[in-house]
Amino acid sequence: MQILVLHGSSRENGNTEQLTNCALEGIPHTSIFLRKLDIRPIVDKRHDPEGFAPVTDDYDSVIQAVLSHEILLFSTPIYWYGMSGVMKDFVDRWSQSLRDKRFSFKESLANKQAYVIAAGGDEPRIKGLPLIQQFQYIFSFVGMPFGGYIIGEGNRPGDILRDKRAVAEARLLNEKLKKILSE
Amino acid sequence: MQILVLHGSSRENGNTEQLTNCALEGIPHTSIFLRKLDIRPIVDKRHDPEGFAPVTDDYDSVIQAVLSHEILLFSTPIYWYGMSGVMKDFVDRWSQSLRDKRFSFKESLANKQAYVIAAGGDEPRIKGLPLIQQFQYIFSFVGMPFGGYIIGEGNRPGDILRDKRAVAEARLLNEKLKKILSE
Amino acid sequence: MQILVLHGSSRENGNTEQLTNCALEGIPHTSIFLRKLDIRPIVDKRHDPEGFAPVTDDYDSVIQAVLSHEILLFSTPIYWYGMSGVMKDFVDRWSQSLRDKRFSFKESLANKQAYVIAAGGDEPRIKGLPLIQQFQYIFSFVGMPFGGYIIGEGNRPGDILRDKRAVAEARLLNEKLKKILSE
Amino acid sequence: MQILVLHGSSRENGNTEQLTNCALEGIPHTSIFLRKLDIRPIVDKRHDPEGFAPVTDDYDSVIQAVLSHEILLFSTPIYWYGMSGVMKDFVDRWSQSLRDKRFSFKESLANKQAYVIAAGGDEPRIKGLPLIQQFQYIFSFVGMPFGGYIIGEGNRPGDILRDKRAVAEARLLNEKLKKILSE
Repeated sequence: MQILVLHGSSRENGNTEQLTNCALEGIPHTSIFLRKLDIRPIVDKRHDPEGFAPVTDDYDSVIQAVLSHEILLFSTPIYWYGMSGVMKDFVDRWSQSLRDKRFSFKESLANKQAYVIAAGGDEPRIKGLPLIQQFQYIFSFVGMPFGGYIIGEGNRPGDILRDKRAVAEARLLNEKLKKILSE
Repeated sequence: MQILVLHGSSRENGNTEQLTNCALEGIPHTSIFLRKLDIRPIVDKRHDPEGFAPVTDDYDSVIQAVLSHEILLFSTPIYWYGMSGVMKDFVDRWSQSLRDKRFSFKESLANKQAYVIAAGGDEPRIKGLPLIQQFQYIFSFVGMPFGGYIIGEGNRPGDILRDKRAVAEARLLNEKLKKILSE
Repeated sequence: MQILVLHGSSRENGNTEQLTNCALEGIPHTSIFLRKLDIRPIVDKRHDPEGFAPVTDDYDSVIQAVLSHEILLFSTPIYWYGMSGVMKDFVDRWSQSLRDKRFSFKESLANKQAYVIAAGGDEPRIKGLPLIQQFQYIFSFVGMPFGGYIIGEGNRPGDILRDKRAVAEARLLNEKLKKILSE
Repeated sequence: MQILVLHGSSRENGNTEQLTNCALEGIPHTSIFLRKLDIRPIVDKRHDPEGFAPVTDDYDSVIQAVLSHEILLFSTPIYWYGMSGVMKDFVDRWSQSLRDKRFSFKESLANKQAYVIAAGGDEPRIKGLPLIQQFQYIFSFVGMPFGGYIIGEGNRPGDILRDKRAVAEARLLNEKLKKILSE
């Protein structure tokens, strides 16, 4: 069992990343910072006779990483009550992977587990709930079990470590992941 | 009163666009197709001493259009139970505009009205609800009244015109907008 | 195919009832007004060795009606952003019916179709969405297809007939139900 | 500052109650078990010329307790993805209190704080979210700050104490409440 963290934040060492690090302390994992990559927005070709055209960007490399890990942790700041644009651009492209004959994308995801860590500033435990519901629909569509989520509150960098609840939840997730990895 | 349509779709003449056209039949309006523009994902500099750096892309021109219209219609396909990535990238950048001293972005939006037209294929009237809630939080944050929304169902291009309910709602919105514009 | 309407309103001829009548115009159906019946709140005995005790109230008669109809229409005013208490008391008791050996409650529901008509006064098309999501989870739990819902806006009795959108949707539902019944 | 717990469960010492006790360990508080009281469902008379008629049940005594406490903790099992029927019947009656000239119900609530503890068995951290959103709308309507919520998972009595996350959150709420009370 190996963990892949997909970081959706647009800044280094922000609250979401700090909370994620807290959840992963002492746990080997792979990190991908989507902001550092070139991932093009989808061009929907689902209904074109010739289907999707190959895109020369970094998307495929991320998908290779997704396919080779068993636990996916989506770590996104809550921007405007949703996942960040870079993370959304990445997820939108899954429509392409679902039709990619090189691999069985959906079947592969169904054997993984998904977790979400999201942090934001404006009542995230209330106003972040539509985002959690959205992730639930996303994971459900591909048949990937939703292992759990943590919502943290913070605006200025470092705020998150004063959100005792989020930190406590991150520590429990840490324990849980360690247990899963040791099985 | 002038209407600006922000199209979030990645394809031409898709279901969302057709439904939007239905709602705007006979009504003068400005259309912006976000997919045709270069709008960079946000780089969050809210907490940097020097603040946001100017970005040389098409974002500012869209904001100029936003500021000069009174009715904003967000027309987005439902991709993975959310707005499209290109629309999310656009909205994320509002964080920058909120701090842009060239104009009073928030105050300006508070005098407008927002509408949403969204179409998707997988039970959109249920699984699209988190997206509507997200838009409600977005509009509420900037104090912009949420005039209404239409959710349509369709997968293959043209499906939407067989969604009688969506078409009926689009026609009612058409009447409503005509009435607003004539006042 | 026969239609059973479960009315959750506490008043006669309120907005929700009027909207429901609009949807059922010219369609034979059975109406049950929950407010006129004695339906006790559930006493949760799921984990008691002896299980649920029989309750001498009107609940069983409603369940008999539920079992003998193929289309269930839940017609409830939106009270405090949820279904009415009398309707909730009724639904809560399903936990008892699920364990009732006299009939196969869940299996029976799975062969029906559910519709929801809900009306309220405070931005119901936004603030009524959690109620729709709740109904979706309820129907999904028992495997009953969710045929659709209508949300109407109205405070004072009669308001609803000025909600053009709700009325248009009710008429479309009327057409749809007539078509289903004629098949 | 005094705490009133409104228990919505229909059984003694269930999971929700245990989790609530965990949150209140060592904290003086008043408990009201709604199941032990006679609280009639609302009869909506908002639009009747003569208004609401007095109801001779236990509702008024609960409202007196609500008015004389500063922190309200709504403790409800998640029944069918919502609050229990007895709690809903209680909340529905607020429409009557809002119009009761004996006291300023809304103004009084606006000076209080609300908390929610909810426990259920079927993915409560996902499928309980509409309930949290509903509570948010309820509290928002009366202007009462929503201090926080805890969702716990459990079916059989006692399960809840194995939900480490819920227990950790209850302990943090315990600390928080102690701090508030000592200020």
